[in-house]
Amino acid sequence: MARLNNETIDDYTNHLIELLKKNANLQFREEFLQLHPTDQAEIYAKLVKEQRQNLYEMINPEEMADIFQALELQEQKELILELDQHYTSEMINHLYTDDAADLLSQLDESAAHALLKAMDLEDANDVKELMAYPPKTAGAIMTKEFISLASSHSAQQVIEQLREEAPNAETIYYLYVVNEQDQLVGVVSLRDLLTAQSNELVQNLMSSRVVSVDSDTNQEEVAKMIKKYNFLAAPVVSSDGTLLGIVTVDDVIDVLEDEATEDLGEFTAARGATDINVSAFQSAKLRSPWIVLLMFFGLLTAGVIEQFEETLNQIILLAAFIPLLMGSAGNAGTQSLAVVVRGLALGTLEKKGLFRILLKEFSTGMMIGFICAMTLLLIIPIFYGSYMVAVIVGMSIFCSLSVATIVGATVPLIIHKLKIDPAFASGPFITTVNDILGLLIYFTIATSLLHYL
Amino acid sequence: MARLNNETIDDYTNHLIELLKKNANLQFREEFLQLHPTDQAEIYAKLVKEQRQNLYEMINPEEMADIFQALELQEQKELILELDQHYTSEMINHLYTDDAADLLSQLDESAAHALLKAMDLEDANDVKELMAYPPKTAGAIMTKEFISLASSHSAQQVIEQLREEAPNAETIYYLYVVNEQDQLVGVVSLRDLLTAQSNELVQNLMSSRVVSVDSDTNQEEVAKMIKKYNFLAAPVVSSDGTLLGIVTVDDVIDVLEDEATEDLGEFTAARGATDINVSAFQSAKLRSPWIVLLMFFGLLTAGVIEQFEETLNQIILLAAFIPLLMGSAGNAGTQSLAVVVRGLALGTLEKKGLFRILLKEFSTGMMIGFICAMTLLLIIPIFYGSYMVAVIVGMSIFCSLSVATIVGATVPLIIHKLKIDPAFASGPFITTVNDILGLLIYFTIATSLLHYL
Repeated sequence: MARLNNETIDDYTNHLIELLKKNANLQFREEFLQLHPTDQAEIYAKLVKEQRQNLYEMINPEEMADIFQALELQEQKELILELDQHYTSEMINHLYTDDAADLLSQLDESAAHALLKAMDLEDANDVKELMAYPPKTAGAIMTKEFISLASSHSAQQVIEQLREEAPNAETIYYLYVVNEQDQLVGVVSLRDLLTAQSNELVQNLMSSRVVSVDSDTNQEEVAKMIKKYNFLAAPVVSSDGTLLGIVTVDDVIDVLEDEATEDLGEFTAARGATDINVSAFQSAKLRSPWIVLLMFFGLLTAGVIEQFEETLNQIILLAAFIPLLMGSAGNAGTQSLAVVVRGLALGTLEKKGLFRILLKEFSTGMMIGFICAMTLLLIIPIFYGSYMVAVIVGMSIFCSLSVATIVGATVPLIIHKLKIDPAFASGPFITTVNDILGLLIYFTIATSLLHYL
Repeated sequence: MARLNNETIDDYTNHLIELLKKNANLQFREEFLQLHPTDQAEIYAKLVKEQRQNLYEMINPEEMADIFQALELQEQKELILELDQHYTSEMINHLYTDDAADLLSQLDESAAHALLKAMDLEDANDVKELMAYPPKTAGAIMTKEFISLASSHSAQQVIEQLREEAPNAETIYYLYVVNEQDQLVGVVSLRDLLTAQSNELVQNLMSSRVVSVDSDTNQEEVAKMIKKYNFLAAPVVSSDGTLLGIVTVDDVIDVLEDEATEDLGEFTAARGATDINVSAFQSAKLRSPWIVLLMFFGLLTAGVIEQFEETLNQIILLAAFIPLLMGSAGNAGTQSLAVVVRGLALGTLEKKGLFRILLKEFSTGMMIGFICAMTLLLIIPIFYGSYMVAVIVGMSIFCSLSVATIVGATVPLIIHKLKIDPAFASGPFITTVNDILGLLIYFTIATSLLHYL
């Protein structure tokens, strides 16, 4: 199928709209259906309502199913409402079961129920099954369109079977072997099957110690397993080993990207609140607890500073450098955090010694601290006229950056080991810890120096 | 091939080491080779040097190639040094060209050169070709082991060809059709081929408007394209359309994960410095410019506070709440940043109106600010005994959180539109901007209130 790049998509959309306007329906249909469904979907989403109504008359429900599969869930949800019910149920019959289940779970219960009733009984049952699994599990993301074989068939027989079943399967490249009770007993790749003698039996070709996941396995674990073994799909089984469905690599890419960007939420103490599709009120409800919790830590820093009110009274200029010190320590700590979190995510960290990591971060912190201290020793006397403050700030930044990198590297490692809520290893929490330590260092140095002078 | 889960890997490793100790070489070999190469690699990496030496005598270079392919690059680099050169060059002959090129680029030049000389000429040339492409381009990550067809062949002929070539191809599920000048003219999936009549010609089965990428296309773009169209592979062509290689979906997963975790670096102003395998000195060199640059912004905040020295002199307690105010504004801003950056990464944001996003973030900021202000109006009088300071801090936190969410949401959007270095949209930069705004708000409110009272 032809595929368009971003520039041509716009041109092509205009071209197709022109055809619609001219009522050149046959030509429109022919050109449109030659495109890759992903591009069809992109064009479809750009049409105005009237043009879409035209489209529905030219495109049958089966063709529409391909387009729908390529739309974002949110778009599917909005567009399905303008289709008539008969057309919709026909189309859903032709969706892969995982996509059908995702779509129906977006609709309100009565609409979903009505559509399920109008669907083919077998398809409807498959979809209902998928909808019953808890979200973000293997069961919820798997599809029912897999190919299963009997181990007693020959390679040739299987190829005959594939000719029949291929059009309705999500992948035909991994073939799953089941016994009479539909229990998974082996897997054979189409590659092995093709290169085998045509009378060779499946049982001699298949690998019998087959990888599978339970239907309640977390989707991230499924994704990591598929990634680790470079699989194109993984079979999902019930507790008694019955083959229930498959998870394919394209779904896994979405899961991995979703999880990686979800980490941004954890990283910024906005956990579970980075979805763009929630209301301001909902968003405030999810985000304010973190801000308020962190604010209470902030009250601790206020307590620290209050303890040193006398020192501050002697040199009020010290207050001016509180943000600079806190900011620098916070930034250095967050960098260390990023290094360690990335190492944990990519699995490159486990192989290094823990001690070596900490030593490296500490050395890095000292070096950066030294550079900052030297810079400030030069600049502060020039702009603020105080050598005393320059020395205090310089010494403080050196010490607090060294400490900050240690904190930034240690906290996520501890969190990882203890398996507590990773949101607590996020930037804001580490920054807050570093704030308090940095202020203590600052005012301790300031008070001591003032004392001795 | 059998695959093990994490618990059994350890047991199985011990079991295999026992076999090695008992010199039960045949049994070891048989059991070991039954495992999936990913598991073989995991066990291999756990062996001590003496056990590994034993292994090399039992496993031939071709079998070793499968294991090497499943190791991390860093491990490959360390382990290859203990193999003898003849064994190594034989093994590299059996690596996929992309893996061979990756490995050789890790070695020092003379070692790589010696190995290339000892390799089969054709393989060596393929590897040299890949090594010549700039890193992180389609050319650098592609492999040469693809299957190309003539359009004049029949489905049956192609299947015969596959029987021959399948063992050496990285994927046989997408077949690329080339003309006599090796220019890419079409693509046909094995699925379509299998379901076709056996005498049907490739030219009637193939899609002739085929998607391809240039060899100098950025790897992230290749990955996004494969993800968008749910491909298993994408062909890479030269400027004149000659088919050079393919990029497969498993490589793309690594690229997407790598890019997503690299975003953490951008997010924390540690860009390009989140690799765990660099020295402390190197790390300080990469990270210190950001810290120093941000420190100069910090000097601006010092300037702001200095302007309000008189106000501070009147109520020294105001200094105590600087960190709390700055921290809260920073956190709220970073949350908004996470929402927008995630939306941009997942592509869910483009479809919402820009204005709606900003309005939502602003409303969220006001609500969170209101909650924080109310909390502080209660707490500060109790613990710090000053209604005046409570009012100043409360009003300031309400205003600065509202502003901070706007800043956190706007900056990445502007950066995205202007296509400037996204590191400037990172948490630390936004936090610094919010620091300055927050302090201005704080001291302006304080000074005005003191003036009127």
